[in-house]
Amino acid sequence: MHKMPILAAILLLAAGPALADEGMWTFDNFPRQAVRERYGIDVRQDWLDRVRQATVRLEGGCTGSVVSPAGLVLTNHHCVRQCLQELSGPARDLQDAGFLARDRAAEERCAAVQASILERIEEVTPAVRAAVGDGAGPAANERRKAALTRLVEACEADWRRRGDPHACEAVTLYGGGQYFLYHYRRYTDLRLVFAPEGEVAFFGGDIDNFQFPRWNLDFALLRLYVDGQPARTPDFLRWRRAGAAAGEAVFVAGHPGSTQRLQTVAQLQFEREFVLGHWLLRAAELRGRYLQFAAEGAEHARIIEGPLFPLENALKVRRNQMATLLDHDFMAAREKEERALRAAVAAQARLKPGAVAWADIEAALASYRGFYDRHVFLERGAALQGDLAAAARLLVRAAAERAKPDEARQRQFTEAALPLLRQELLAPQPVYPELEILRLTFSLEKLVEYLGVDDPAVRLALGREAPRTLATRLVRETRLGDPAFRAQLWEGGQAAVEQSRDPLLALALRLEPEAQAVRRRYEDQVEAPLHAAEERLAAARFAVRGTATYPDATFTLRLSYGAVQGWREGGREIAPFTTLDGLYARATGQPPFRLPARWLQARDRLNLDTPFDFVTTNDIVGGNSGSPVIDARGRLVGLAFDGNIHSIGGDYGYDAALNRAVAVHPAAMVLALGEVYGAQALLRELAIE
Amino acid sequence: MHKMPILAAILLLAAGPALADEGMWTFDNFPRQAVRERYGIDVRQDWLDRVRQATVRLEGGCTGSVVSPAGLVLTNHHCVRQCLQELSGPARDLQDAGFLARDRAAEERCAAVQASILERIEEVTPAVRAAVGDGAGPAANERRKAALTRLVEACEADWRRRGDPHACEAVTLYGGGQYFLYHYRRYTDLRLVFAPEGEVAFFGGDIDNFQFPRWNLDFALLRLYVDGQPARTPDFLRWRRAGAAAGEAVFVAGHPGSTQRLQTVAQLQFEREFVLGHWLLRAAELRGRYLQFAAEGAEHARIIEGPLFPLENALKVRRNQMATLLDHDFMAAREKEERALRAAVAAQARLKPGAVAWADIEAALASYRGFYDRHVFLERGAALQGDLAAAARLLVRAAAERAKPDEARQRQFTEAALPLLRQELLAPQPVYPELEILRLTFSLEKLVEYLGVDDPAVRLALGREAPRTLATRLVRETRLGDPAFRAQLWEGGQAAVEQSRDPLLALALRLEPEAQAVRRRYEDQVEAPLHAAEERLAAARFAVRGTATYPDATFTLRLSYGAVQGWREGGREIAPFTTLDGLYARATGQPPFRLPARWLQARDRLNLDTPFDFVTTNDIVGGNSGSPVIDARGRLVGLAFDGNIHSIGGDYGYDAALNRAVAVHPAAMVLALGEVYGAQALLRELAIE
Repeated sequence: MHKMPILAAILLLAAGPALADEGMWTFDNFPRQAVRERYGIDVRQDWLDRVRQATVRLEGGCTGSVVSPAGLVLTNHHCVRQCLQELSGPARDLQDAGFLARDRAAEERCAAVQASILERIEEVTPAVRAAVGDGAGPAANERRKAALTRLVEACEADWRRRGDPHACEAVTLYGGGQYFLYHYRRYTDLRLVFAPEGEVAFFGGDIDNFQFPRWNLDFALLRLYVDGQPARTPDFLRWRRAGAAAGEAVFVAGHPGSTQRLQTVAQLQFEREFVLGHWLLRAAELRGRYLQFAAEGAEHARIIEGPLFPLENALKVRRNQMATLLDHDFMAAREKEERALRAAVAAQARLKPGAVAWADIEAALASYRGFYDRHVFLERGAALQGDLAAAARLLVRAAAERAKPDEARQRQFTEAALPLLRQELLAPQPVYPELEILRLTFSLEKLVEYLGVDDPAVRLALGREAPRTLATRLVRETRLGDPAFRAQLWEGGQAAVEQSRDPLLALALRLEPEAQAVRRRYEDQVEAPLHAAEERLAAARFAVRGTATYPDATFTLRLSYGAVQGWREGGREIAPFTTLDGLYARATGQPPFRLPARWLQARDRLNLDTPFDFVTTNDIVGGNSGSPVIDARGRLVGLAFDGNIHSIGGDYGYDAALNRAVAVHPAAMVLALGEVYGAQALLRELAIE
Repeated sequence: MHKMPILAAILLLAAGPALADEGMWTFDNFPRQAVRERYGIDVRQDWLDRVRQATVRLEGGCTGSVVSPAGLVLTNHHCVRQCLQELSGPARDLQDAGFLARDRAAEERCAAVQASILERIEEVTPAVRAAVGDGAGPAANERRKAALTRLVEACEADWRRRGDPHACEAVTLYGGGQYFLYHYRRYTDLRLVFAPEGEVAFFGGDIDNFQFPRWNLDFALLRLYVDGQPARTPDFLRWRRAGAAAGEAVFVAGHPGSTQRLQTVAQLQFEREFVLGHWLLRAAELRGRYLQFAAEGAEHARIIEGPLFPLENALKVRRNQMATLLDHDFMAAREKEERALRAAVAAQARLKPGAVAWADIEAALASYRGFYDRHVFLERGAALQGDLAAAARLLVRAAAERAKPDEARQRQFTEAALPLLRQELLAPQPVYPELEILRLTFSLEKLVEYLGVDDPAVRLALGREAPRTLATRLVRETRLGDPAFRAQLWEGGQAAVEQSRDPLLALALRLEPEAQAVRRRYEDQVEAPLHAAEERLAAARFAVRGTATYPDATFTLRLSYGAVQGWREGGREIAPFTTLDGLYARATGQPPFRLPARWLQARDRLNLDTPFDFVTTNDIVGGNSGSPVIDARGRLVGLAFDGNIHSIGGDYGYDAALNRAVAVHPAAMVLALGEVYGAQALLRELAIE
């Protein structure tokens, strides 16, 4: 409230689009000048370094932040759902009951969770360009991928030589405009420290998801372990309990998953017709099957929670993305922008390679239309869904790829990528046969529906069996639910896979040649020309617009700037903060608006004016979940867990008037830990101001 | 095969779009000249009259044709599915087993089925214009509707005075360019005579639906009864067993349901974003719930067949309609066409009212965006699904409307409309509580999802109960499954409805004010300006393009012309006929490719070269199901039951190169009746050449 002058200044400035809080900036190209002009804040290199070191990538698709010198990591409750599910069973439901380790010995390992902290960014564009040479065809595409694998290999070998193993990853930005090696410190032992009850973490459920005002206590704590001991993490974020004031400038560090802001109009049209259109219909049907499955009984309802939440979340996201791409004004603006860029590029003779890129992209997509569904079903896994079937596909593919020299492998099976893959595959995870049957039946039925009964791959998959009959038999007979069996096949390689009589593995093996063929077709007819065209487009864009732009999101570390600020909609002003009293007012006692007993009992002793959730103008998307919201002094002032409904269109463009990030307020987390859960030891470990 | 010269001629002519086989023509404006030029056939008035008299509208949304002097009606198996379901129970499954009445006394009544034969077309445009007068606002809209009700009333009174009661219906064509009264002879007693097993009628199921080559024996026979006796129908179609040759000209008479070919680009954009977009996602989810419900056991699988078939059919239709509206080339062509029309209209000062119509339409749709979902849920029934809930809504609304003078009623509740409504409502139909719970739960859950928990109607509907709890309680407690109880409420009118303590009725009553309010808003802010704009657009279009065009489909009688002809796709030629051997080749023994025992046993004695299904270039859409395909001499040469996948885009435009109607061949029906089902008496009754 003390910052109203700043807010007023922002509102004035916001009229100029160049100064909007747009952008997911890399740490090595942060627009310090723009931030200084807009907010009067000097973002110094030591601030950037410290924030980078305190920001964690959770490999499942989230972000976290280090909040103590002993490896404590703050992230969203919804980012640890899979772990809660894994550690639960019919007798203990952590998603429902929450979890608090009474001491460090009681912290429980999340077997499949992995984390990375970015330590170094190294540009390698010249090396990649030199290796690829001229040409835009399939061969150049192969050379590019081999070059990236070699660079990663050399990078990791170098760290090993220094006795300090790191993970290196190749990062392609601006669709190939620039190439980097990102050097990560990797953590493979993460343990669950604290999670509230699902009912308060995800209060309002799918109904309130992406809405605001909002009351979600969407936070959890993990701890990084190294050699069985809590990791030492000197760069951590202190908490500013009072949070940031309305209008105050804040930063969000994290790993936005992907955006499509640099895509051409033809790509956006392809996206809405094929990518979103086909996926949405299948996902909506699967959701229906899940919900009816849940209605069959309490245990089914518990089991389905794991897959249902991400599905409903993705449905809401993609449905609103579709709405953006169907919006006439949005598309008209993109078309206009593209016409302007094309004209500018056409005006410079030296940009001729860029000028033909649009037509090349259209041609590649025209080709892709002819086999998009086959590619999605056979190579991208839509035909064989469920954890067991996914394991079968992975084992088959990994065995074949691991038999090749590193450089010749598909990039997700290079030596550098294997450790994470292996850990995920071999982690013990509960298997629910009825759920597996549902998912495999569904995916086989869709395979028939999308490719038709006369497709050779469909005949190969089904023989003369109906999808449900086949799926039931395979799930009942396969041994892939046993981690030891999976380990045996992984270690045994191609011989073990080919000799196995496991019927689900056999199905994956039978479909593998079809999958590889459609993959090859995709790489040669779509990926290669698209990549070449995008690279030329990036060069043309740099030439016309300069390099003061940010690249599309790629689940790599980014920093966004903005301010705590509500928005105006339908003639109403949406205030930036909610307070605890609203949580109680909204609780009906019925899911998803039911509060855990602990919260009902605590009500009388809590300060109901405590800030709960709040919104900021920061430009974030999925993958930023769990991101710290940070003030100018580098203190944690919030925990991002969502965007408002308008922010979903952010995949394709940022609208400063409407897009908002949604975060949990530190005061709510401190109150919960101290007064609801009695987690005094954790409060002592956190550095709270 | 003897007609190749004709086919060649067609292919040559097809290059000129003006001569494509496009159009669903009214019988009073049939393009006889165009047909003479294209096919050398003179379609005479007596031919038109006889075909009109022999074509039946099935009020559930299908067409049939009279095929004997004793009221025998040929239609599709899928048009009698609901009747098969009604006449089935756990002990007798007619959908599965088929049905053949051993004699007329054994023909079983389909309680909810009604039919109409069009006897007279009377234009009333001047009368409507005079009654409406000037102005385009809500009041003019009300005057128009009242005028139509008065005209219908007077028409029916006139027939009654002549001692020959007919049903009159107001028909609006060209979006208000012309108004008509259609005079029908109505049949309310239809009985089931014959239906094959569902497996052969819908061979290939949803997978092969809208595909070709195809092998569906999608036919059934009903009989019209009057005063308990078979109706006398002197105008009937003789069968030409050999069918029409490839390339031969054929006609399809029937009742295409609706098309959107005259809609503006803004309307098409609204259609894809809201109408199709929102519906598709909900329908796909409901399909998933149905399929999982079916997986729970054999009786559930049987029960679900009734609602599942129309849902999957509609999903396939709308999904492909969406693909058409997402197709860049299609939309670009529509935009170009619209620009040309706008330029032509703008060039004539006297067409100024038409020139502003486009902007008026955009403004009306902009307003509709703001409450489209509320309208669909509260007034169009999306919030309260299931047979019981539909009955509750209908009873509540009918009671209030019937208390008003005829002219002031909503048009679906005028005196003229009541008999059909009442018959449908009071027909005894099996009620499956578990299915009703599923449907009501689903619709209440979607209500919350689409309108949000804070909408007053949502609070009114749910109180503090969760959707499933509420739905379960209402279905268990309501008595609306009892036809006698429904009759009592219908006869008792408003007092009976308001005094009833039936909880489902009470819910509908509680939501009624919200439904009426959003209806009023729709009528005033959307319907009135849209109708006024479309009327002016129609006038402008007539002025620019003349009247030699056909109106959009409105489930009224139309005639289309075309020829038996395959098509070319992906470099392949699709032949126009399939033969019986293909049916056996495609049978895997697994649903939906399983043949009934009777067909497997008969195989050796059947001529496997018998034509089975075939395609024609006729321009048809849903509602044409069951339509007779007729040759130049007025003989039945096929039974339309489907279009190919391209024809689905026909809702928005006809593509002569790809759109095809799919029909059952008469030889297949004759063979089935005689050699598979032993229906000799029926064969004798039919006039087969």
